[in-house]
Amino acid sequence: MPVSVQASAEIAEPMEILRRTPDVLRALLSGLPDTWTDTPDTPDGWRPRDVVGHLITGELTDWLARTHRILEDGTSREFDRFDRTAMLERDRGASLEELLDRFAELRAKNLAEFASLVSDDDLSKLGMHPSLGEVTLDNLLNTWAVHDLDHVGQVFAGLAGSHDADVGPWKHYLGILLRRDDPAAVPG
Amino acid sequence: MPVSVQASAEIAEPMEILRRTPDVLRALLSGLPDTWTDTPDTPDGWRPRDVVGHLITGELTDWLARTHRILEDGTSREFDRFDRTAMLERDRGASLEELLDRFAELRAKNLAEFASLVSDDDLSKLGMHPSLGEVTLDNLLNTWAVHDLDHVGQVFAGLAGSHDADVGPWKHYLGILLRRDDPAAVPG
Repeated sequence: MPVSVQASAEIAEPMEILRRTPDVLRALLSGLPDTWTDTPDTPDGWRPRDVVGHLITGELTDWLARTHRILEDGTSREFDRFDRTAMLERDRGASLEELLDRFAELRAKNLAEFASLVSDDDLSKLGMHPSLGEVTLDNLLNTWAVHDLDHVGQVFAGLAGSHDADVGPWKHYLGILLRRDDPAAVPG
Repeated sequence: MPVSVQASAEIAEPMEILRRTPDVLRALLSGLPDTWTDTPDTPDGWRPRDVVGHLITGELTDWLARTHRILEDGTSREFDRFDRTAMLERDRGASLEELLDRFAELRAKNLAEFASLVSDDDLSKLGMHPSLGEVTLDNLLNTWAVHDLDHVGQVFAGLAGSHDADVGPWKHYLGILLRRDDPAAVPG
């Protein structure tokens, strides 16, 4: 279901990624057997369900809360910190399908809210990140989109890792597998 | 459109990824503005359209040709080499949408052909890779799927790279951007 959001061109452009992410995750993960989805991207990393859970946390506690903080307090009150592993306990009983649905709902709601709250003139407004210092609302909007890309990329590494042993000698050419063992590895 | 393929469980499992890839690429790339899709994953890397073109080359010249080679010649005749950059010239005039459609058509046809050609008993049959030596047909089938995951992951890096300058100080936390500059980089 496409998200119907009225937004200016400058706000709509990053939203082109943000509105696609739930559909991309569904196209990739919905109905996929556990033999593909039970492996983390690195030994201490995240399974696909953990990634979807982390994206849900962002929708619940991060992106819109920080948008409000910038609009209401500027740099005078820094952002609350983001709990990167909140999903591990919170989502313990949920199926991957339930997490995909939950993420899609929250994302649609948040894009509509962002578009109704923010105009182009607001994008240059400043907020205060607790570690990074001053950031603009435009930085936040684009980071929201690139953060999606980063974590969905991580899902591909977990899926590939589940079949590391099945590719035989071809592993030598598959950077997505080699980098799970050594981040600097280059395929042969 | 789901691919309707009759295949044994052992063959169907890797196909769960293979049949999803065209839909994942469409969900991600169809209609996405050029401001997102015109950047390669690394300075000498590939734009999303180059990746889709490379996957098309695989469907045209690699996976099914090598399946036939294993079934017909075993290890007595090694695989033909794969032209990794054939798409750069071949696809010059094609739009990204046309490439997505072409890939989906070829993939559906090839999955149906693979399922009709290969039974579980064939998966242990050996072929001869010109550089890697002996590989099984099961290695080939799983590599076909993990090769998809590797290259679709590359698309995410190109998309993220197009907005490298827009995330401001947050780049420090975004591995997908840091790795474009230094493959061994670890987010702060």
